[in-house]
Amino acid sequence: MSKEEIGERFRELQLFICAELEKVDGSAKFSEDAWDRAEGGGGFTRTIKNGNIIEKGGVAFSIVHGEVNEMMRTQMKIEGNSFYATGVSIVIHPKSPHVPIIHMNVRYFELDNGTHWFGGGIDLTPHYIIPENAKVFHQRLKTICDKYNPDFYDRFKPWADEYFTIPHRGESRGIGGIFYDHIVSDSTNSKETLFNFAIELGESFPFIYGEQVAFGKDKPFTEQELKWRNLRRGRYVEFNLVNDRGTKFGLVSNGRTESILMSLPADASWEYGFVPQKDSNEELTLNFLSKPVDWLNI
Amino acid sequence: MSKEEIGERFRELQLFICAELEKVDGSAKFSEDAWDRAEGGGGFTRTIKNGNIIEKGGVAFSIVHGEVNEMMRTQMKIEGNSFYATGVSIVIHPKSPHVPIIHMNVRYFELDNGTHWFGGGIDLTPHYIIPENAKVFHQRLKTICDKYNPDFYDRFKPWADEYFTIPHRGESRGIGGIFYDHIVSDSTNSKETLFNFAIELGESFPFIYGEQVAFGKDKPFTEQELKWRNLRRGRYVEFNLVNDRGTKFGLVSNGRTESILMSLPADASWEYGFVPQKDSNEELTLNFLSKPVDWLNI
Repeated sequence: MSKEEIGERFRELQLFICAELEKVDGSAKFSEDAWDRAEGGGGFTRTIKNGNIIEKGGVAFSIVHGEVNEMMRTQMKIEGNSFYATGVSIVIHPKSPHVPIIHMNVRYFELDNGTHWFGGGIDLTPHYIIPENAKVFHQRLKTICDKYNPDFYDRFKPWADEYFTIPHRGESRGIGGIFYDHIVSDSTNSKETLFNFAIELGESFPFIYGEQVAFGKDKPFTEQELKWRNLRRGRYVEFNLVNDRGTKFGLVSNGRTESILMSLPADASWEYGFVPQKDSNEELTLNFLSKPVDWLNI
Repeated sequence: MSKEEIGERFRELQLFICAELEKVDGSAKFSEDAWDRAEGGGGFTRTIKNGNIIEKGGVAFSIVHGEVNEMMRTQMKIEGNSFYATGVSIVIHPKSPHVPIIHMNVRYFELDNGTHWFGGGIDLTPHYIIPENAKVFHQRLKTICDKYNPDFYDRFKPWADEYFTIPHRGESRGIGGIFYDHIVSDSTNSKETLFNFAIELGESFPFIYGEQVAFGKDKPFTEQELKWRNLRRGRYVEFNLVNDRGTKFGLVSNGRTESILMSLPADASWEYGFVPQKDSNEELTLNFLSKPVDWLNI
């Protein structure tokens, strides 16, 4: 399986996900920007806004290749002369505070010396955490993981808990999910296994999100719940701009800013010293975010 | 002049500025949070919201002291065993798109080996840039600079242009102002000169901002101008979380998060691929932000 084939399949995956997300939304359609990268490669950034469900979202695909530069050598510890990287990235910000924000990424990296690896994951950020829904989300991920390697969920779930942390807030970004990086194929996990795992995660994404959307989409919401949604979006912005390694690497390495920052919400809020009311749903959610939770066994 | 005296004068400066800003606003009052730092020192964070003019703002004072840690040694290149740092920091986000955002900081740093230095500055971020108003702002700063050292403005103005840049956007944050850091007293600039310069900057701040407020506060605004205000606030958030060295250092060094992030606006917006209309005021402002401007001679 060549890097070009993987790139082509990722592009198909992007188009499949967009078509399915349009069905989930029921109203808005994606539009597409094609872009070139001066140093090699380019991408198609697909964005959607002002839908029934989705207020602002993006599904980005890119293939970038070129010389391994100094930053990649020092920050990514990459040894090699030239690289090829392709992936699909998604962030969806829904309108309703009762529908969660979701993020997905699958990516493949290859060096001219033949070394190659996969990374990716899916994680969910409900504005209001409902344990039964969180459990369903994690069950879906575990079912996929188990098809490829019985160790994947137990390795990748804590990895997400660690990655999607906002240290300066002492909070998780959401209920986590799975995250993995730099997984090299070997006798246990063949290249095909890792690729098929990435594709199945991607193809399952619209169903997994659609299910979470269905849980909350018909629930009415108040002005106060919208305010809370925007405060949580503020935290999402903080994570993405301060903590997310992919975003930071993209911005300092002269990536396409509009594609990288498609992850930001339409609106976000900050309030100095905000503390939710005692025993409110907002406080309940904050409590869940204070430490990793074993959602499968809650 | 001892470090304790400088700390006391900075605290007085904070209180003076808050009293004067309340007059500029005409309605809202500051409230104060006192906090302690486990490793030594603490501060008073004063915040204001929902005023006539000011939607969200803060004037923070802190004195922190303790052992020089590894991060300070490597990132700040500090040689010494213990340090003492005190300063006043301000960010004001106004309601009206025709009133600019403003930021000010004055700070003093001293090591146990007697080494000490000053830093600070004032910079302005109009949502809509009006060259005559920008010129007045820079004239005020130059007048203060010239009283202390005829070289200050010419050194500190380009320093602000460089510092308040958002590289991933290819934009300045605003019209700049002055910025200086690590200015050690010597035969040209005595400790008293540098201290008095910091105090005069601080004491002039409410007048300088009040003047800019007066230029725009009675101008009516549209929904579209509010939308643009929020997009510019989005850029402000990006600068503070991605680029501002003080914010980044505070967050990774276990500073008081709510005090550090009091710089963020009540609301901010992002829109994928937003491009202002040709020949609009929004486009005019973006053009001004594309490179440093000699505002005194515009």
